[in-house]
Amino acid sequence: MSDTTEGDIGTTAAGNGALTGIRVIDLTRILAGPFCSKLLGDMGAEVIKIESADGDPVRRQGAVVDGFSWYFAEFNRNKRSVVLDLYSDTDKDVLAQLIGTADVLIENYRPGVLAKMGFTQERLDALNPRLIVASVNGYGSTGPYVDRPAFDFIAQAMSGFMASNGDPDGPARRAAAPISDLVAGLYCAFGVVSALQARTRTGRGQQVESSLTGGLISMLSYLSAEYFATGENPTRTGNNHPIVSPYGLFEASDGEIAVAPSHDTMVRRFLGVLGIAELLEEPDFKDNAARMRNRTALNAAINQVTRTQSVDHWIDVINKAGCPAGRIMELADVFTDPQVLSQDLKQRIDHPAHGPMYVTGFPVKLSDTPCTVQAPPPDLGADTDAVLRELGIER
Amino acid sequence: MSDTTEGDIGTTAAGNGALTGIRVIDLTRILAGPFCSKLLGDMGAEVIKIESADGDPVRRQGAVVDGFSWYFAEFNRNKRSVVLDLYSDTDKDVLAQLIGTADVLIENYRPGVLAKMGFTQERLDALNPRLIVASVNGYGSTGPYVDRPAFDFIAQAMSGFMASNGDPDGPARRAAAPISDLVAGLYCAFGVVSALQARTRTGRGQQVESSLTGGLISMLSYLSAEYFATGENPTRTGNNHPIVSPYGLFEASDGEIAVAPSHDTMVRRFLGVLGIAELLEEPDFKDNAARMRNRTALNAAINQVTRTQSVDHWIDVINKAGCPAGRIMELADVFTDPQVLSQDLKQRIDHPAHGPMYVTGFPVKLSDTPCTVQAPPPDLGADTDAVLRELGIER
Repeated sequence: MSDTTEGDIGTTAAGNGALTGIRVIDLTRILAGPFCSKLLGDMGAEVIKIESADGDPVRRQGAVVDGFSWYFAEFNRNKRSVVLDLYSDTDKDVLAQLIGTADVLIENYRPGVLAKMGFTQERLDALNPRLIVASVNGYGSTGPYVDRPAFDFIAQAMSGFMASNGDPDGPARRAAAPISDLVAGLYCAFGVVSALQARTRTGRGQQVESSLTGGLISMLSYLSAEYFATGENPTRTGNNHPIVSPYGLFEASDGEIAVAPSHDTMVRRFLGVLGIAELLEEPDFKDNAARMRNRTALNAAINQVTRTQSVDHWIDVINKAGCPAGRIMELADVFTDPQVLSQDLKQRIDHPAHGPMYVTGFPVKLSDTPCTVQAPPPDLGADTDAVLRELGIER
Repeated sequence: MSDTTEGDIGTTAAGNGALTGIRVIDLTRILAGPFCSKLLGDMGAEVIKIESADGDPVRRQGAVVDGFSWYFAEFNRNKRSVVLDLYSDTDKDVLAQLIGTADVLIENYRPGVLAKMGFTQERLDALNPRLIVASVNGYGSTGPYVDRPAFDFIAQAMSGFMASNGDPDGPARRAAAPISDLVAGLYCAFGVVSALQARTRTGRGQQVESSLTGGLISMLSYLSAEYFATGENPTRTGNNHPIVSPYGLFEASDGEIAVAPSHDTMVRRFLGVLGIAELLEEPDFKDNAARMRNRTALNAAINQVTRTQSVDHWIDVINKAGCPAGRIMELADVFTDPQVLSQDLKQRIDHPAHGPMYVTGFPVKLSDTPCTVQAPPPDLGADTDAVLRELGIER
């Protein structure tokens, strides 16, 4: 391919992923589970996605281009698709045979459903004692909410995440991205690989589980530490830092700049670049406590200077002075940013039937066994025949 | 311990973690790196945290109770603390010896700093060819921003995350929790354990890296798929779903309920429970497109019913009908919630010197080798003598 500014497939030899040789049977659909199995596939695992004849509903959701859902593509590259009817005993037998060949089984049913389908933990143990059985669900598999249906928006509300976001006098705020799904999927992938490591010592598989609410609660650890220590809920502070000033968004001539001086040395660098470091000698601004009290006046003094130059100018000089600064970027800015392209965070896939498409790249880099896109998102059932043949089943 | 509603230490025999036998040398400080090594320690790895004589700055930050920072406790349980002066050749030699005994080295310096300290990749390879060298940084180790200082607020701005959050006519909105730090730490932990798995095949270590911006960009994958397909940035929709109605917050007699019916079947269940499913026969509400056009009228009709009963009532009956529903919880609600306590997401640690303290529990559950708190957060340098003795060094 001629495009050298974006990552593309085929840059690394197949079969050299960190998880090469690991086989994952993937019963998940929609988002959290498929994100988990995608992460394992990106790392080189062979992922066999089991779908009903209708397919993962995501195949029909989001922006469908030329008959193909790019939402499906994003979360299902590096997978094979096998159609099975898990209401039929014949196909349940096929699943049982596949389980016998696998290292990992992933599901995101509500707790208990897999057992009701005939795959109790006892049976799974008997089929394959080395099997790691991974589950992603809403609330975990113990406790009073175990049977509740789950959804990202509810997990954002129930985890404390929403309540911490927003303006001091405004409502609690969700994040637009389904962050609880993806964090839960990432935790599950971490758990699966940790269980693989345990298996090298014990010779046995085990159960791994993560939940939308549990994962997002862990992402609040910084706020929770303060809550545990003081018994007080965090107060909403919009885009301002609750205990640091100056901090936040400031006005350049052509837009806003985000500046985050996390301690006094950085504050001095920031105001020094603006030519107003002498403010730090005044009683109103001499320390962080004084600057918190006089935040409005300080921000006005800063904006008076920052308004005289462009966003680009300030980001360059403030960073060079050693203080973190940046801009608020829309996705169109993100995916044309030279840094993001240098990090291969936009990946081109040439799908044999649907042509070029783009997906997010790899946020974790391994030098010798890098993540790669080795297979495009599969058409529904594209690998059914091949996988059945591998099992010695003729239909 | 008598408190049976919260997780506590000592419930599982030491030495039975998934990563038992793995030794991690941890050069990180502040947040993203220490979160990564905490995750590895929770999984059973031995984590040796190297600190300067001043200690990790977090020891003096956040709510300090009786001389101990609970912010430090949250991110540094399950670690040993060794004080070394990495400006001195003597202590660099100690670090080199430790590296020879380790499986993993983690650092969160800016790219290039570790090499300038004398620990180039070549030297690390020579010291220990099986060593996994993990780095967490702001932007990755390639690209034009490689030398910029990093901070969560800037990563939220530069990743597209802020721009996607907020009201349609309001500003972009950060999340209050330092989400980019924790996601980067979690990705790095996933990468480290994946590299351990690769090592079982190759016999060699490698470099692993994650970044604040890269990790958070990956959390936007759902939005990015739409952007890649359409070329259009996501529009901010506050707490409403951009393409689903009804969805969001509704008014009960004593507060708000969050309801997320993600498809038509669930909408029917939700309105059925309210006794207004007949609205779905009307042209104004017959399908999702009609309901999006008439969202204000539909929400008014829903609120008229939901206002007649309590939050508790509606959460119970809507969930029982199979539609996800919940409440907006502050951290004080979260950490007294029976579900959260059942999941051991609040952990008590009895610190030998500082008494009982609380930290967040484990969002990923392994049945046979569960995460545990095996050691309280260490006092500065508490393990220096013991670790030096293990190396055969007398001081």
